[in-house]
Amino acid sequence: MLDIFKEIRHDLQKVEEELADVVQHNNPLLNETSSHLLHAGGKRLRPAFALLSGKFYNYNFNSVLPLAVALELIHMASLVHDDVVDSAITRRGTPTVKSKWGNRVSMHTGDLVFAKSLLMISKYEDKPLIAKVLSRTSVKMCEGEIQQLSSAYESGQTLKDYLYRVHRKTALLIAASCQLGAVACGAPREIYMPLRRYGHRLGVAFQIIDDILDMVADQRKLGKPIGGDLRQGIVTLPVIYALKNSPKKETLISLVENKNKTEEEVHQAIELIRECGGIEHSNKIVDKYIYKAKEELKQLPEVQAKKTLYKIADFVKYRKF
Amino acid sequence: MLDIFKEIRHDLQKVEEELADVVQHNNPLLNETSSHLLHAGGKRLRPAFALLSGKFYNYNFNSVLPLAVALELIHMASLVHDDVVDSAITRRGTPTVKSKWGNRVSMHTGDLVFAKSLLMISKYEDKPLIAKVLSRTSVKMCEGEIQQLSSAYESGQTLKDYLYRVHRKTALLIAASCQLGAVACGAPREIYMPLRRYGHRLGVAFQIIDDILDMVADQRKLGKPIGGDLRQGIVTLPVIYALKNSPKKETLISLVENKNKTEEEVHQAIELIRECGGIEHSNKIVDKYIYKAKEELKQLPEVQAKKTLYKIADFVKYRKF
Repeated sequence: MLDIFKEIRHDLQKVEEELADVVQHNNPLLNETSSHLLHAGGKRLRPAFALLSGKFYNYNFNSVLPLAVALELIHMASLVHDDVVDSAITRRGTPTVKSKWGNRVSMHTGDLVFAKSLLMISKYEDKPLIAKVLSRTSVKMCEGEIQQLSSAYESGQTLKDYLYRVHRKTALLIAASCQLGAVACGAPREIYMPLRRYGHRLGVAFQIIDDILDMVADQRKLGKPIGGDLRQGIVTLPVIYALKNSPKKETLISLVENKNKTEEEVHQAIELIRECGGIEHSNKIVDKYIYKAKEELKQLPEVQAKKTLYKIADFVKYRKF
Repeated sequence: MLDIFKEIRHDLQKVEEELADVVQHNNPLLNETSSHLLHAGGKRLRPAFALLSGKFYNYNFNSVLPLAVALELIHMASLVHDDVVDSAITRRGTPTVKSKWGNRVSMHTGDLVFAKSLLMISKYEDKPLIAKVLSRTSVKMCEGEIQQLSSAYESGQTLKDYLYRVHRKTALLIAASCQLGAVACGAPREIYMPLRRYGHRLGVAFQIIDDILDMVADQRKLGKPIGGDLRQGIVTLPVIYALKNSPKKETLISLVENKNKTEEEVHQAIELIRECGGIEHSNKIVDKYIYKAKEELKQLPEVQAKKTLYKIADFVKYRKF
């Protein structure tokens, strides 16, 4: 990934420093929890998209910086809150804020990190579209989380239900990252709209791959036990396919609906999903979205960043963790 | 209270309708939790302040409406999140979202309600001060919550620690309400700054009274058991005074620091605090802040709303629940 980001490596480093600054705090507990969150890493995909999309029009790093930081803060806040509700113990291989400090501190850390993103966004006085898009995105992200909760362990879910969630949980924020970097540099609609759509298609692909990896990844590389989604009752694309196409449909239904699955049952469910081609099918859908993402790039000016966005689309497809 | 608000009763009603609209949702679970939150009531003090402060300069209801709604949404979001972390079972006499639906749903409902406030705020494209003040306020509110958590059950707290928290937890949002209603109507600094300071002073008084009522109120009127703060380890003004002045200091220290107080011990602590004059002392501090709040009004134009703000200051002092 780092290699792909060569073009923006220097600027990404400055985003990282600004992030460290922003989460610093004089309350020692708070300082510890937010720094912990920061150092837990992550690919900084959203800031990278914002910087790259800025390259399509009058790129100015200082114009994109607050946005890039805000995007990562929103993403981080949603991760901490996910940890609170999911009882997750590790994320990316390090203990989560929750498992180290408990639910209360996590929730407020997430709230604080999110509120700090608003401070960043409020700097764009002359570009109200940025606040508008990000507030709409935040609302939708919450809706996605709640739909996920309210549909947990339901085996009757359709592809439409799944896409509703993926759109909200992941695709919209990546779409916003790709759109708003250009907006922050003053780009016109003909530039930022294809970028937004590119981000959206790619975001959907990204989430489907995440959902596939939750079933097939190497646990050590993934940094968390596989089958987490099934355990939490989250019905993802491979499951939806298998629930329709597996010859052992009835067994799978009862496994999915079981709220207290044993480890063995989780693995049995994964086996059933793989056997009937649920993973292959999902990979095909990923290909479709990546193809659609790349199509959007065609109409954009020929800048170096465009090549990078093509490469990222390919990288997303072949990532293994 | 209703009588005081006569001047804005009609507009407050419209705020109420807009609030109902905003929290409505097509996800049935979400619709239920947010409506529950809405109907749990509350005094709508923050919208009322926004409307009243708008009356000091070219009042236009439609200019204040999104702000009034946003302020109440921010307040509501912080209440739901408080419920998550405090394990509170009832608030204002009705079961909390948490006790009815569990922590996960509560947290996301709070997040959603907060995100919806951002949608409202993003409407003020031409008044960037509104987003700036509210984002700063949101950051500070989170800091207050975290300081409260990290200092829980600590008997060595000072008045300064307490005021740090009150400033963040309560006073800043009321200050923002009083300031930004005027800002939304285009008022100049000479008008909105005294209003902001009025709100801040009054907000401090308001919180101190809350903390007093937590020890002396009629449980039925308060809608929750008394002594809640002591039980959660929140060290409020009467406690700080008593920890310094009670002849039975040592007993009180060990009661405050005890994380598993019995009901009897909670009442014993309250008794010690009352005996040494902790409540009386706190009431005196309330008087001081109310006096300071009223002083700020002097320099403002003589409109009807000014009389109302004086009355609210007096009402705050004499409220019993």
